[in-house]
Amino acid sequence: MSDKYNVTIGGGDLMSYFSDGNNVCWFLEPELGAAIRRLHGLVGNAVTDDRYIVVGTGSSQLFQALLYAFTTPGGPEPVSVVSSAPYYSDYAEEVSFLRSELYKWEGDAYKFNKKGAYIEVVNSPNNPDGTLREAVVMNRTGNGNGKLIYDFAYYWPQFTAITGAADYDNMLFTLSKCTGHAGSRIGWALVKDKDIAKKMTEYITISSIGVSKESQFRAAKIIEVVCNGIQNVGSVKSENLFEYARNILSKRWQKLRETIQNSEHLILSKYPQEHCLFSGKLTETLSAYAWLESKDDTKDCNEFLRGLKIIGKSGKICGAHQKFARINLMCREEEFNQFIERLSATRGKGIINGH
Amino acid sequence: MSDKYNVTIGGGDLMSYFSDGNNVCWFLEPELGAAIRRLHGLVGNAVTDDRYIVVGTGSSQLFQALLYAFTTPGGPEPVSVVSSAPYYSDYAEEVSFLRSELYKWEGDAYKFNKKGAYIEVVNSPNNPDGTLREAVVMNRTGNGNGKLIYDFAYYWPQFTAITGAADYDNMLFTLSKCTGHAGSRIGWALVKDKDIAKKMTEYITISSIGVSKESQFRAAKIIEVVCNGIQNVGSVKSENLFEYARNILSKRWQKLRETIQNSEHLILSKYPQEHCLFSGKLTETLSAYAWLESKDDTKDCNEFLRGLKIIGKSGKICGAHQKFARINLMCREEEFNQFIERLSATRGKGIINGH
Repeated sequence: MSDKYNVTIGGGDLMSYFSDGNNVCWFLEPELGAAIRRLHGLVGNAVTDDRYIVVGTGSSQLFQALLYAFTTPGGPEPVSVVSSAPYYSDYAEEVSFLRSELYKWEGDAYKFNKKGAYIEVVNSPNNPDGTLREAVVMNRTGNGNGKLIYDFAYYWPQFTAITGAADYDNMLFTLSKCTGHAGSRIGWALVKDKDIAKKMTEYITISSIGVSKESQFRAAKIIEVVCNGIQNVGSVKSENLFEYARNILSKRWQKLRETIQNSEHLILSKYPQEHCLFSGKLTETLSAYAWLESKDDTKDCNEFLRGLKIIGKSGKICGAHQKFARINLMCREEEFNQFIERLSATRGKGIINGH
Repeated sequence: MSDKYNVTIGGGDLMSYFSDGNNVCWFLEPELGAAIRRLHGLVGNAVTDDRYIVVGTGSSQLFQALLYAFTTPGGPEPVSVVSSAPYYSDYAEEVSFLRSELYKWEGDAYKFNKKGAYIEVVNSPNNPDGTLREAVVMNRTGNGNGKLIYDFAYYWPQFTAITGAADYDNMLFTLSKCTGHAGSRIGWALVKDKDIAKKMTEYITISSIGVSKESQFRAAKIIEVVCNGIQNVGSVKSENLFEYARNILSKRWQKLRETIQNSEHLILSKYPQEHCLFSGKLTETLSAYAWLESKDDTKDCNEFLRGLKIIGKSGKICGAHQKFARINLMCREEEFNQFIERLSATRGKGIINGH
C-alpha cells in the first residue's frame, strides 16, 4: 500500500525546534500525539487518559530518558537496573555504556537481592523468548523501592492477544515494531506522572534537542492510515494492518514448527492461547523471534546455527544459557524461506551437513 | 522557495534500520553523504577527502558521541572536557547530566591547568560571542594529551568569512545553522580516524539505533537545492541561500548597531573583517547572536534585558561575567523588530520605561 500513504513535506515546513510550547513534551508534534491516542483507543492495548506522551528517537532513547528521570545525582550509589532473563540484550548496553553514576546494570531480576532503590524493566511479550511477563522483584523479595518500566514494543495484535488495556505508570511503545517503520526512529512513552514526563523531556532535550519532525509528521500519517484501516473509514479503503501482519507471521510460525518438529537437535517453545479483545478470537502468541533451544544441554545453540549459516543471537548475551539462541523472524519473505531451507538441513542427516 | 523543494516519501520507503551496511556509519543514507561532500566542496569551508561522515540526531548527539569515542572505561579518573569562556552552555550540560565516569566538565579552557588527558571543544565562530577561535590549552600549558573537537556549526558564509577549508581530525556541522532546518535534527561529523568514526557510530547505535531516515532523505534534498542555487544549475533556478541569509543578517546587525550606539547602558562588540574565499569579498562576521555587555560592570545584563521584556541568556551560564548576555538574532522578522523596539526604550528615558 506504499503509494496510498505518501507524505509530502514542503521545503520550509517543520523548521523549528518547537512543536507545541504549551505541552510538557514541547517537541511532540500535536498530530502525532493525537494519532497515538487514537491508535491505542482502537487497539485497546493501553490507557492514554491522564497520560503524558513523550516522543523519542526510538524507544531506546525513551528507556534511557526514564533511567534519568528515575534517578537523582548525589545518591549513595547507582540505582540498580534489572530485567528477568532472558532479557533484551540492549538494556544492558544502554544502562552501562556511559558508566553513569546514576544507575547500574544488575542483570537478571530473578537473581536480584539487594535492598534499596531499583528499576525493573518488564518487556511483554518478551524479546527474545516471546513470553508474557510481569514484574518479579517486589513479589520475590518484598523490596518496595522499585520503579517499573513496561516495554510494550511487542504488545500489538500481530504478535499476541490483547488481553486488556495496560494501565501502568510508565509504558514504552515503538513504531518500528507496531508498523515496521524502524528507520523512522519513533518511539513514545505514556507517562502518568508529570514530573517524570518533564524529566524525560529534559533528557531528550540535552541528548538530542528533540526528535525529528519529519519522522513525527510521517508517523502521524502512517498511524492515521492504520487506524482508518481498522475502522474501515477514510478515503483509502485499506486492510487491517494487524490482521495482515498476523497472517504472515502465522504462516511463518507454522513452517518453522513443521521444520523443527522432527529435529534431532532443536526445540521450539510453545505459547499459550488467550482471548484477544481486539480480534475477538482465541489467539496464540506469534513472537517476532524464534527462541530456539538445543536438545543437548552442552551445545552452544548459536554456534550450531552458525554452522548452518544462520545468524542468530546467543542466549548468553540475553542473560540465559548458551543452549538458547534467538532468530529474528521479521525479515523479508526470501530471507525467511532461506532460513527454513538451511534449518531443514538439521533433519535426517543432522548437523554434519551443516559444517 | 518552500514549494520548490518538496520531498515525497512513499508509505513503504525508508523502513529499515540500515542505510548502507558497507559504510562504517551504517545508518547514513548514501545520498546525504554525497550531498554533504558536495556542499563542503562548493562552500570551501571543510576538507572532506579522507574523512568518514557520521550522521547524528543534531550535532549535540555527535558531540556526545565524540566524548564516548575519545574515552575508555576504567581510566584513573574522568577525562576533563573544556572550552574557552564564554562557551556554549549546552556543552556543560551534555558532559555532566549523566554523571559519567568517562568524562567530566571542567569549564573554561583558559583556566585549565591539570595534567593528563583532556578534550577541548573549539567553537568557531563562537556561540555566544561570535569570535573566531583556536585551541588554547596546548599553547597555554604545553599539555599535549588533548583531543580536539571543532564545532563548526556557524562556519558558513552567512555568518562569517570562509578563510579556508578546515582540515581538522574531528569537525562537527549541523543543518540547523547551515540552512535553518533545526526541526530535522540532522548533524554530521567529518572524522579522519576510522576507529573514532566506528566508536561514534557505536555510541549512536546504543543511544538511538541510528538517525531518522526521513530527516536524512529531506536533508539530502535541501542540501542539493542549496548546491544547485550556488552553482546556478538544476531544474530550479534558485538564489544563493548564503547570500540571501547574509543580507537579512546584515540588515539586522545594522539596525541593532544603530539602536545600541547611543545606549547609556549597553555595548555591542565589534568583529574584524576578513577576505571570504566563498564570496570573494571583504566580509564581516555577522554572528547569529548579539553578545551584549552592560556599561556598568555591576549590572546583570540579562536582568536588565528582562526588564525590557527581552529574553536572553545570561553570560554566567556561558562561563562569563553577568554583565554579558546573549540574544538570538535568528528569529522571525516580526520578533526581531519587536526586539529592536523594546531595546530602543533604553535610549533617552532609560530603563525606567522598561519596568
